[in-house]
Amino acid sequence: MSDSSFNPVPLIRKKRDSQSLSDTEIERLIRAYTDDQIPDYQMSAFLMASFLNGLSDAEAAALTRAMLYSGIVLDLRDIPGTKVDKHSTGGVGDKLSLILAPIVASCGVPVPMISGRGLGHTGGTLDKLESIPGFTVDITLERYREILEAEQMVLAGQTEDIAPADKRLYALRDVTATVESIPLIAGSIMSKKLAEGIDALVLDVKFGSGAFMKKKEDAVRLAETLVGIGEEFGKETIAYLTNMEQPLGYAVGNWLEVKESIEGLQGDGPADVMEISHLLAGTMIHLGKQAATIEEGIEKSRRAVSDGSAFRKWVDIVRAHGGDTRVIEAPDRYNYAEFRQPVRSPKSGYITAMDAFAMGMVSLELGAGRRSKEAAVDPAAGFILRKKVGDYVEQDETFAVLHTNNDSMLKPCGEAMINAISISAEKPEASGTVALRVDRSGIHEQFAQ
Amino acid sequence: MSDSSFNPVPLIRKKRDSQSLSDTEIERLIRAYTDDQIPDYQMSAFLMASFLNGLSDAEAAALTRAMLYSGIVLDLRDIPGTKVDKHSTGGVGDKLSLILAPIVASCGVPVPMISGRGLGHTGGTLDKLESIPGFTVDITLERYREILEAEQMVLAGQTEDIAPADKRLYALRDVTATVESIPLIAGSIMSKKLAEGIDALVLDVKFGSGAFMKKKEDAVRLAETLVGIGEEFGKETIAYLTNMEQPLGYAVGNWLEVKESIEGLQGDGPADVMEISHLLAGTMIHLGKQAATIEEGIEKSRRAVSDGSAFRKWVDIVRAHGGDTRVIEAPDRYNYAEFRQPVRSPKSGYITAMDAFAMGMVSLELGAGRRSKEAAVDPAAGFILRKKVGDYVEQDETFAVLHTNNDSMLKPCGEAMINAISISAEKPEASGTVALRVDRSGIHEQFAQ
Repeated sequence: MSDSSFNPVPLIRKKRDSQSLSDTEIERLIRAYTDDQIPDYQMSAFLMASFLNGLSDAEAAALTRAMLYSGIVLDLRDIPGTKVDKHSTGGVGDKLSLILAPIVASCGVPVPMISGRGLGHTGGTLDKLESIPGFTVDITLERYREILEAEQMVLAGQTEDIAPADKRLYALRDVTATVESIPLIAGSIMSKKLAEGIDALVLDVKFGSGAFMKKKEDAVRLAETLVGIGEEFGKETIAYLTNMEQPLGYAVGNWLEVKESIEGLQGDGPADVMEISHLLAGTMIHLGKQAATIEEGIEKSRRAVSDGSAFRKWVDIVRAHGGDTRVIEAPDRYNYAEFRQPVRSPKSGYITAMDAFAMGMVSLELGAGRRSKEAAVDPAAGFILRKKVGDYVEQDETFAVLHTNNDSMLKPCGEAMINAISISAEKPEASGTVALRVDRSGIHEQFAQ
Repeated sequence: MSDSSFNPVPLIRKKRDSQSLSDTEIERLIRAYTDDQIPDYQMSAFLMASFLNGLSDAEAAALTRAMLYSGIVLDLRDIPGTKVDKHSTGGVGDKLSLILAPIVASCGVPVPMISGRGLGHTGGTLDKLESIPGFTVDITLERYREILEAEQMVLAGQTEDIAPADKRLYALRDVTATVESIPLIAGSIMSKKLAEGIDALVLDVKFGSGAFMKKKEDAVRLAETLVGIGEEFGKETIAYLTNMEQPLGYAVGNWLEVKESIEGLQGDGPADVMEISHLLAGTMIHLGKQAATIEEGIEKSRRAVSDGSAFRKWVDIVRAHGGDTRVIEAPDRYNYAEFRQPVRSPKSGYITAMDAFAMGMVSLELGAGRRSKEAAVDPAAGFILRKKVGDYVEQDETFAVLHTNNDSMLKPCGEAMINAISISAEKPEASGTVALRVDRSGIHEQFAQ
């Protein structure tokens, strides 16, 4: 529908003056922007006004709807089962999707998962998948349905067809200092997830130094906004707030994380990683109607690991996506990075803190991440921690091993790793990983399983 | 100086987070924008952040300086005398410049006046001047200096050379709902006035329905900001707050206002017009060092009218600018509009209010104003009031006469004029025109002279 006479100035003024826009107004604004009927400079003024004056839940939902219907929305109703996906707001060492999706699929819940690439200090699921030789996420819609129906799980990259308005808005936000707005972040996440054709969604909202949300209260607001939007669209949505003060697990870097996720699927994963994986997987199994409660879902999740069905599912998925299953079944066959250098502790004591953000940047510098969208990543680069917060380390003991093909980064990255840890004579108190659950009934304290 | 690596995002973020920018930061931002090194969408995000979070006095001064030095700044130091100009924030029927500038010049104070065209409901001084046959403001810088030195007064239109950054920023503000920001308005006004090469400035800051500032408190803040910037640049600046609840004087429209200003210079002007004219002129004469006090300046102003010297000065100025002095000396020779239609009162009573904004829009519709920058104006269009607030009017008595060459506007404009007045049996209390004076020592109550 042509809308050439649309004047956005009254809508910018409304938001500037802290008034609410109607669903129709937001829809017209986004459509006019996507159709190149209004210029970037008017949208950026609207974005800054929205950043500073906020958007109501209704406005955030309308924004999500407008971005969602700017592109294709998959209809998976002809595929049996209650489709459930999981989204994480991103963290350092976050390989949870690679563990929980095969678990959930092996329990009979279809998981249609469309993921993005990493940017900055956090890695992206797509980069991790593509570190598996031969693995492709570049598949047709037809093949996407086929794999999902056959394997109860499929992995794809976000295409130009999905929420193109979000893509344009995100690029504009990135250069106008309007990224860190909770309703804008929520709209961006949900417009992409709802396009997948899911029936329910589990969210892992991370907070702390290694997450995008540094403060817990911001993460709570984001979780509430995400759940509100999901419920507005009739999709049951449960969010967990999880702590990202130190990297998740021991491995950071694309293949290194795939390898750690294989260990997790084989029952040999790090405690923190497996705790959250089972919680999120159990919740997905419950939302996918294969367990009456979350607790029952968690039980099923543990069993899928211990009886080997989750790992077998993962091998099948890798094969379906063209990946080399030999490295999945025998990770030591992988072509690791040329340089592997230990990082030694400058003194003895307990590790009291690890700066997850700084460590994420180390991983990026070693080659595992990208500074700009066009950059390529080194699948083998990253690091393996040998110690985590609470562990005792001797002077000169190796607490991490750097992996890279770029030897010029070994020295600065080694120094950065040392600067990223704090050591003290006193053993720190253990802090839980999962803090809160947010669902349509409100905010709940969540204790470690 | 090339500055191609300049990244504005950290500065946008600072203002977004209510932090102050340094002089250097603001200067770099404006220079980069003017040099096309940063796009409109980043500047509009900065403008919206500035609109919502404000700019400090220091930031407003730095913005003014950056816009001022984006173009030429006249140096009039070789012309004798203390150069003083006056600026009005614009109102309906505001012909004060045409009265006070000849008065001040005739008292020996040079007045270098660069004016803009009108837009929307208020007229512009340039449009009024150009309603005089032959009058041109399109003069070279050489001729500008010649006229100023010979006549102590010169009138010119704003050129592309003066504060080009302001011109670009204003155009962007206009389409991004960021116009009504006090520091941005103040920076825009002062960058243009300071480019004139003045030594001191008198400001007429209008408030009320017919002004851009509807609320008196906003007008006070604008006056304080303007005075603060002027003093920051070492130019003594005095602002008056004047009431624009009804049109100023009786005439609205380009030539009609020139004619009323001639009557004022001949000692036959409306009381409200002459009161403000003498106050502003007296202040300019004082700032121009031709009177020890404002009061003495006002006395000199009155004398310049009563002894005919101000009117003779006006005839000389019109001649210097190529205008037809015959219509100045005998206004009835003017080529008036083809249609002149009375507007009659719907009932008897006292006029208690006149909606100056609505009447400004009537003048525009009759042909005297422009909706867009490119539109032409009809020099003869407008209206003459016969009654003002406080006057008694009989039912069917003519309270205004419309002048236009566009007969299709007579009916709707007549109706709009009737809707713009309020009539009551009770005589309203008289309210003063001049409310406050703002100078470097603060805010002062100002009583009618």
